Amino acid sequence: MTLALVTDEAAKADRIELMPMLVELGRRARAAQRVVGLANAEQKTAALRAMARAIRAAKADILLANATDLVAANNRGQTAAFIDRLTLTEAGVESIASAVEDIATLPDPVGRVLATFTRPNGLVIERVATPLGVIGVIFESRPNVTADAGALCLKAGNATILRAGSDSFESAMAIRAAMAAGLRAAGLPEDAIQLVPTRDRAAVGAMLMGLEGTIDVLVPRGGKSLVARVQNEARIPVFAHLEGIVHIFVDRAADLEMAKTIVLNSKMRRTGICGAAETLLIDKGCAATHLAPLVKLLLEAGCAVRGDTQTLDVDPLVVPATDADWRTEYLDAIVAVRVVDGLDGAIEHIETYGSHHTDCIITGDKAAAERFLNEVDSAIVLHNASTQFADGGEFGFGAEIGIATGRMHARGPVGIEQLTAFKYRVRGSGQVRA
Amino acid sequence: MTLALVTDEAAKADRIELMPMLVELGRRARAAQRVVGLANAEQKTAALRAMARAIRAAKADILLANATDLVAANNRGQTAAFIDRLTLTEAGVESIASAVEDIATLPDPVGRVLATFTRPNGLVIERVATPLGVIGVIFESRPNVTADAGALCLKAGNATILRAGSDSFESAMAIRAAMAAGLRAAGLPEDAIQLVPTRDRAAVGAMLMGLEGTIDVLVPRGGKSLVARVQNEARIPVFAHLEGIVHIFVDRAADLEMAKTIVLNSKMRRTGICGAAETLLIDKGCAATHLAPLVKLLLEAGCAVRGDTQTLDVDPLVVPATDADWRTEYLDAIVAVRVVDGLDGAIEHIETYGSHHTDCIITGDKAAAERFLNEVDSAIVLHNASTQFADGGEFGFGAEIGIATGRMHARGPVGIEQLTAFKYRVRGSGQVRA
Repeated sequence: MTLALVTDEAAKADRIELMPMLVELGRRARAAQRVVGLANAEQKTAALRAMARAIRAAKADILLANATDLVAANNRGQTAAFIDRLTLTEAGVESIASAVEDIATLPDPVGRVLATFTRPNGLVIERVATPLGVIGVIFESRPNVTADAGALCLKAGNATILRAGSDSFESAMAIRAAMAAGLRAAGLPEDAIQLVPTRDRAAVGAMLMGLEGTIDVLVPRGGKSLVARVQNEARIPVFAHLEGIVHIFVDRAADLEMAKTIVLNSKMRRTGICGAAETLLIDKGCAATHLAPLVKLLLEAGCAVRGDTQTLDVDPLVVPATDADWRTEYLDAIVAVRVVDGLDGAIEHIETYGSHHTDCIITGDKAAAERFLNEVDSAIVLHNASTQFADGGEFGFGAEIGIATGRMHARGPVGIEQLTAFKYRVRGSGQVRA
Repeated sequence: MTLALVTDEAAKADRIELMPMLVELGRRARAAQRVVGLANAEQKTAALRAMARAIRAAKADILLANATDLVAANNRGQTAAFIDRLTLTEAGVESIASAVEDIATLPDPVGRVLATFTRPNGLVIERVATPLGVIGVIFESRPNVTADAGALCLKAGNATILRAGSDSFESAMAIRAAMAAGLRAAGLPEDAIQLVPTRDRAAVGAMLMGLEGTIDVLVPRGGKSLVARVQNEARIPVFAHLEGIVHIFVDRAADLEMAKTIVLNSKMRRTGICGAAETLLIDKGCAATHLAPLVKLLLEAGCAVRGDTQTLDVDPLVVPATDADWRTEYLDAIVAVRVVDGLDGAIEHIETYGSHHTDCIITGDKAAAERFLNEVDSAIVLHNASTQFADGGEFGFGAEIGIATGRMHARGPVGIEQLTAFKYRVRGSGQVRA
């Protein structure tokens, strides 16, 4: 557990109280989960609608709390980008409320019959979706995570323990108060969505340990250093991706115009999202025709290009790529470009340097596409489509709590279905085992 | 990491070599997994058939190795039950080989399309089953786990790192050699099924840490102390159940004859398996008619009965149950009996004392059954059927690597489908994101 610096006796006294308080919070979340886990779809939908109303009704409180956070963040000298992520406007609060309403309209994921099999002895066995349990969400500056994550977890019958970054603490508290009011209005326990009520950083350490068995899975929402810490130190499962080193492979059978459209969109539509392309691999079999137009297109669009020797020849603006470039998620208008030896070379490069997040092949050769889709071991593999589709909303999941690159339980966009577990229901008529 | 006692300089030198050796073993498993993960169904089936042949061909070697283990175990004064679990016979080796052949005939779980959705923009998205990765199996005295676990994991495209108990080490090495021969014969890498080639107990500690990221999930196969250690100390996911405190609730609407048949089978068919009933709960609404016949039936069958006050009145052979009895997995001909206040009382008891493994209701009341199946939060919930059906084979999974009570990824019997993960394949025709 990482302990924040204890500077005075009062803080020391607070620290002593912290663990029992956190464990009690976890215990209450566990009890509340049992109630919301058994709540029917109508109750959960009603609660989500009531939350949206409560958020709208609390708009002034939320904006005031946010103003407090913003003053403090400015005083601490936070960057403009940070301040931007932290800032809520009237429209921002409305969009938080309407996102909660959108989640209310999603189909209920609990109780779905995932499989049914009838045994020769007449037993009917169903695998049926159940809630996952208590989900810990650790986030940084974006206060909307409070509502998004809390609502999504509730829809799947889960309780949530949220830990806000110190900078977004007041905003998160105000939003959580509205969520709690919505739960109460629908007759559900407000402990189903809790926010750790302290800025003390030791709370993060305690959550990484699972709060004595009361948190089932952690979801970090924030920058790479937060995700890395959670992945490295958590003693319980984590749904996350550390980075999206996203590749586009332009195969020798790629249509150049399609490649231009997809590459430009994948790299430049938004450069700061995890599905943005970072590395462009060109098949040596089409480098003569496809490399220069693609590189020039990206340069013209304002993208810096770091290339291998063959790419350097295309344009004097291209700078040499080093081995580190193949391992870098720029999240910026920068791309690494390399000529590879066909499909095998592309797969080899991706498996060596990739992050198993999202990778794409552009080709008119169906067999090459199938091999790529089969052999590249990433959460999302695409054929002839922009990598920026790597998003739960674009997948039709309604909303996502994040994108996972692990193989355990959830992979790719984590929506309400991935926030469920399952159990087996066995119906008999007196069968006994021989 | 638990370190075994180092008694001499030679052992100390061995210890220094242990970690690099284990990490190298993990690295080779990871590389081999990539090959078997991409192997098609025919290749894997051929390998499993070749393994079965190799096990039969190595019968003499396996029995000789087993004899060595048995002499050592006898010298160490192991119990008769332990020796029984360790002992292989000619028939035992044949049954190991035929179990591998049974796994060969199962449908291939890799590549199954789990879901398909077409988006309004024309993207076709498939969720498709992939291998899980490298599976670490830590077992104790039963040498057949080497073949069972190795074969089941291979069928799902996974590599296995097996750690045999010190007592079954020679037997496991001999069986693993046959598995390796089968893999080679089918042109697959023998590193896909490896056995830690040392009795050094420090290897277990290293596996609990995940061998520097080369093991994805651990499966402990053995007694409660092994499972407890793995669950408590592992830094990576674990598929396991600590214990099966299995309940049967006889509802007021239960048919007495059916209750007698199911209770007797659930408790007494085999008392040492995790699906054996341990606690019998009788609805007070039928205690007058059902309690005495059920208790007398169990006593007559040779089962010791520990009961609450009402049960004590049934027969002088009943001894008083303490709170500890409600929390005990006897794995023996002992049952705890309690009268509860209807369905609510039963659910309350099970949620308080249970282990979320397997629980059963006997009733003719469909609504009561549905409430029980919905509200009892166990991996397997049954209506009017013996709890001894809690078994992957009985579920039609062909084989299981164990039963899990966690909610993450796998729950209930862990068969080949639960040994897979998934990824998303997205097929487009030039779509870009707006």
